[in-house]
Amino acid sequence: MHVIMDIMVSPSGVGISVSPYVAHCQKIFREAGLNHKMHSYGTNVEGEWDEVMAAMKRCHTDLHDMGAVRITSHIKLGTRTDREQSMQDKIDSVNEKLD
Amino acid sequence: MHVIMDIMVSPSGVGISVSPYVAHCQKIFREAGLNHKMHSYGTNVEGEWDEVMAAMKRCHTDLHDMGAVRITSHIKLGTRTDREQSMQDKIDSVNEKLD
Amino acid sequence: MHVIMDIMVSPSGVGISVSPYVAHCQKIFREAGLNHKMHSYGTNVEGEWDEVMAAMKRCHTDLHDMGAVRITSHIKLGTRTDREQSMQDKIDSVNEKLD
Amino acid sequence: MHVIMDIMVSPSGVGISVSPYVAHCQKIFREAGLNHKMHSYGTNVEGEWDEVMAAMKRCHTDLHDMGAVRITSHIKLGTRTDREQSMQDKIDSVNEKLD
Repeated sequence: MHVIMDIMVSPSGVGISVSPYVAHCQKIFREAGLNHKMHSYGTNVEGEWDEVMAAMKRCHTDLHDMGAVRITSHIKLGTRTDREQSMQDKIDSVNEKLD
Repeated sequence: MHVIMDIMVSPSGVGISVSPYVAHCQKIFREAGLNHKMHSYGTNVEGEWDEVMAAMKRCHTDLHDMGAVRITSHIKLGTRTDREQSMQDKIDSVNEKLD
Repeated sequence: MHVIMDIMVSPSGVGISVSPYVAHCQKIFREAGLNHKMHSYGTNVEGEWDEVMAAMKRCHTDLHDMGAVRITSHIKLGTRTDREQSMQDKIDSVNEKLD
Repeated sequence: MHVIMDIMVSPSGVGISVSPYVAHCQKIFREAGLNHKMHSYGTNVEGEWDEVMAAMKRCHTDLHDMGAVRITSHIKLGTRTDREQSMQDKIDSVNEKLD
């Protein structure tokens, strides 16, 4: 089952700047070989369900190891059975309707 | 790793009423033996990470089997290493500050 | 336009415990006369769009005044034109499908 | 008060393809003169709080006028008082930590 995920990871108890933690998650997605693209409020990730979920779990376990005592993730998960669709397809589909 | 999840499952292509699909997910959480409580915009679920994730995956696979061609889930995941905290603890902690 | 909102307010830079800030938002909803109910990952609020949005804005401005230098809110907003539906109706609709 | 928003608008009762509706919201943000950037799971928008909220409300009212009987939006709202930060600053801040 293919999934397109959006994930925003919020570690607490590490001060105001969370960018080193977000950067670490980017590395996790890269090392997992998952197509991913960061935006200003999270990261789009796509791949096989179990691989995406394993990377997502590693974000929590690694960030705890890095010192975050509390982590909240906000996630969107999309699956469909009617046709294949990539992250880029979703954007293209909207852009076609824009003049 | 203990996790408190909030999940809102949105099947598409099944008409306006999604309550039979949401009800099915409630049954999945109940059958998995996970403490859970529905609210007007999702369901709070708590338990061991892998068990919660397995139930969440089953929501997607079962709802596809029920005819939903497209499913989007909106999820919050919270883990912490400083102390144990239940779903009810979170609510009690706020209520104590209310007169 | 009637709206059912779910809101989770996350102040940063105030330490691990955010319950005093969440409690303050509960007071804002109460003072605004809006029907609301807290769960473990946010608060369901219902009412007229502009009144709900005014209360939501006050959460941000008040919490900044209380010392939170950074606030992120995660919000769901639902409106419908086919029929009236309350927060409780949504829950009842699912519970009817559960044995 | 400056805000950075992320918004994903989900109309129901309009079939599987929601891209014409998402495209209409892009036009609303453009006409409002708000800096915005679409990703695969929503759109980042930044500007003054009241202007961003007015555009967000117009997404709901316009999409209802276009025939969507039920709309659910998933929104993130970020405000901060310690310093100015743009949508691009957030991305740059993470990229600096990546080798």
